[in-house]
This record gives sequence, C-alpha cells and structure tokens, in this order.
Amino acid sequence: MKILVIGGTGTVGSAIVKELSVRHDVVVAGLTSGDIQVDITDMDSIKAMYQQIDNLDSIVIASGSVHFGALTEMSAELYQKGLQSKLMGQVNVVLEGIKHLNDRGSFTLTSGILNREPINLGSSAAMVNGALDGFVKHAAIELPRGLRINIVSPTVITEALAGYAPFFRGFKSVSAADAALAYSKSVEALHTGQVYIV
Amino acid sequence: MKILVIGGTGTVGSAIVKELSVRHDVVVAGLTSGDIQVDITDMDSIKAMYQQIDNLDSIVIASGSVHFGALTEMSAELYQKGLQSKLMGQVNVVLEGIKHLNDRGSFTLTSGILNREPINLGSSAAMVNGALDGFVKHAAIELPRGLRINIVSPTVITEALAGYAPFFRGFKSVSAADAALAYSKSVEALHTGQVYIV
Repeated sequence: MKILVIGGTGTVGSAIVKELSVRHDVVVAGLTSGDIQVDITDMDSIKAMYQQIDNLDSIVIASGSVHFGALTEMSAELYQKGLQSKLMGQVNVVLEGIKHLNDRGSFTLTSGILNREPINLGSSAAMVNGALDGFVKHAAIELPRGLRINIVSPTVITEALAGYAPFFRGFKSVSAADAALAYSKSVEALHTGQVYIV
Repeated sequence: MKILVIGGTGTVGSAIVKELSVRHDVVVAGLTSGDIQVDITDMDSIKAMYQQIDNLDSIVIASGSVHFGALTEMSAELYQKGLQSKLMGQVNVVLEGIKHLNDRGSFTLTSGILNREPINLGSSAAMVNGALDGFVKHAAIELPRGLRINIVSPTVITEALAGYAPFFRGFKSVSAADAALAYSKSVEALHTGQVYIV
C-alpha cells in the first residue's frame, strides 16, 4: 500500500512510520520536515499537499494541537486554536482526501484520552477529542467508495512523560511503538468507525 | 432556586420550564421570545443577558443549532456553524456564567444521541455532541466554588418526529416531558460531570 503519514516526524508519527514502512510505501508529511510540507490548519496547504502525491491507499494523521489552560482563564479565542488545528485540521484532511484516496482506502485520525479521563488544564483537549471521536463514528457511515475511517485515542505517551508527567499522575503510559500498532490495525484490518483506545 | 432556562420556549425547553417551574423561580431566555432575549452565538449578547438577572442558582441551556448535510458536501464553513452555535454558544454561556452563578450552582447543557448513534447527514451534530460531552466531563473537575455541570444527551424527541422521523427509523423517541426529567435531575440532584442519556 501507499500510505501518507501526516505528522510523521513527531513522537508518535515516527513510530507509525517505523511500524508501517516495513511493509508499505510510506510518504511522510510535516509542517517543516518530511517528504512533503503541509500546514493542516490551512485548506490551501492541504490541497497543495494532495497535488504532490497520487495513488494513495491510506492517510494517517498524527498532528494537531490544542491550548492547555485553566478553565476560568479559557476564552472562545483560545478554544478556537484547538478547533482549527487538531479538530478541523484533521477533518479538512478527510474532506479533501475523499477526492484523492483509492477505493476502499482508509483514514486514521488521532484523538486522545482527555475526553474520557480529564486532567487539569485540559478542557480544550477534552472538547476536541470528543468532537473527533464523534466525527469518525459518524463519517464511517457516509464515506463513499468503500472508504474507511478510524481514530486512535492514546493515553499519555511514554516518550512524552518527561514534559507531561505532572499532569498525568496515576495514568499508565503507552510507548509510541505500542500506540503505532493501533494505526497499523486501522490501516491493515478492514475496520471502520472504530475508536481505538490505547 | 432561581433558574435561567436558555431556549426555554423550544420543544424541549418549554417542557423543562414546565417541569422546573412547579418548584422553582424560572426565568426564560430565548432568541426572540421569553423573559430575556439572548443570541448565544454572540458573547456580547450573553454578557448583556447576565446583566439583566442576578442571584442565579442554576443555568439550563436547550439551545443551539448545527448544519445537516451529506459528508461529501460538508465544508469547514458549514461545520463552523455548529461549532459557533451549539458548541461554543453553550460553552460561552458557561465561561461567562462562572462569574454569575451562586456558589454550588449548576450548569446543564444539551448534546444529543448522534455522536453515539450516527444518522445520515449528521456529521456536524456528531462532532458537536462529542465535543460537548467531552467538555462537560472535563469542566466538572475544574469549576470553582462547588459549581456543578452536567449534560443531557437525548435521542429524537417524540414531538419532533413529524419533521425528523425519516432520519430516525428504528430509534425509540423520548417525550419532551421525559427528557425534561433529566434536566431536573441535573439541577436538583448533586451530580456533576454526568452525561445523561435519555
């Protein structure tokens, strides 16, 4: 298969590339690194990315950010950052990708644990992850041409604990390599509409 | 208790008002009707609403809209309608309401079944409902002064079947009066962080 991994140079993304590239032709997209540059918050940049690659069987997204801050200090503008980046960035990759994926191809998105188990300062992440899980469960029933869509919802990543451990006391972390297995399952099994909790 | 019901003239809203007004002092807010006018998509309008009412023990929101359309015809702009109205409209009522609710007061928001059981054309509703459920589960852990927050996630409302039945074949509807009980539970029990599925 030919697989595009957006965010393929990040902590989880590079583990996904390592897992998939053993068996598949993987193209890595990143904001400033990788084979192709893309800014998923910009629809023109997403369209330009798709112009640089054809014959795609699978699109994996491990990219997008949200603002972390105290609920009482959040604002519509600060929530908008997550809605534009992690939520609509991934959704726009799907909307435009529908026109480019091969029949029976798959999308694999990324949410995270925080809409299931909140942490301090994480209200935007909880909002965006819930939105993504809901969108994916829905999109699976409407996608044309046998296209599939799933989402991986990981707990805190072991390799990221150096920066985030104080916010995730009591959470069992998952290694990037183990999280990457769920992306492989989405790409290589025939599932659709699944939220993989890892 | 003194309770503000935003959207209190709608199908569900008027049932909520009927359920709560037997025991409480209920103030109804609506876009063009009710005791106070408010447009929840406009933060200035939300602030003006709070200036017209004080000593609030509870805020209930049964308001907000999303665009229904085929996934392959959706766009960032069409998703933005639901993100601005049903999602951020309710979230902005909470953010501003934190400054106005009495200690141990409660917020009760409204999502819906579509992030759990999708229907054709409902991708924006699935996204927004998931975002709201995630936000509420999170906000409960950060709200100050003993403030509480819950959300009611109803299936299709019996009184709305005249317009929506073709989209909800096989779904068991709930009457507005029965859905209103969940709002009463949120207001009058001491729960927080709950998603009430009715």
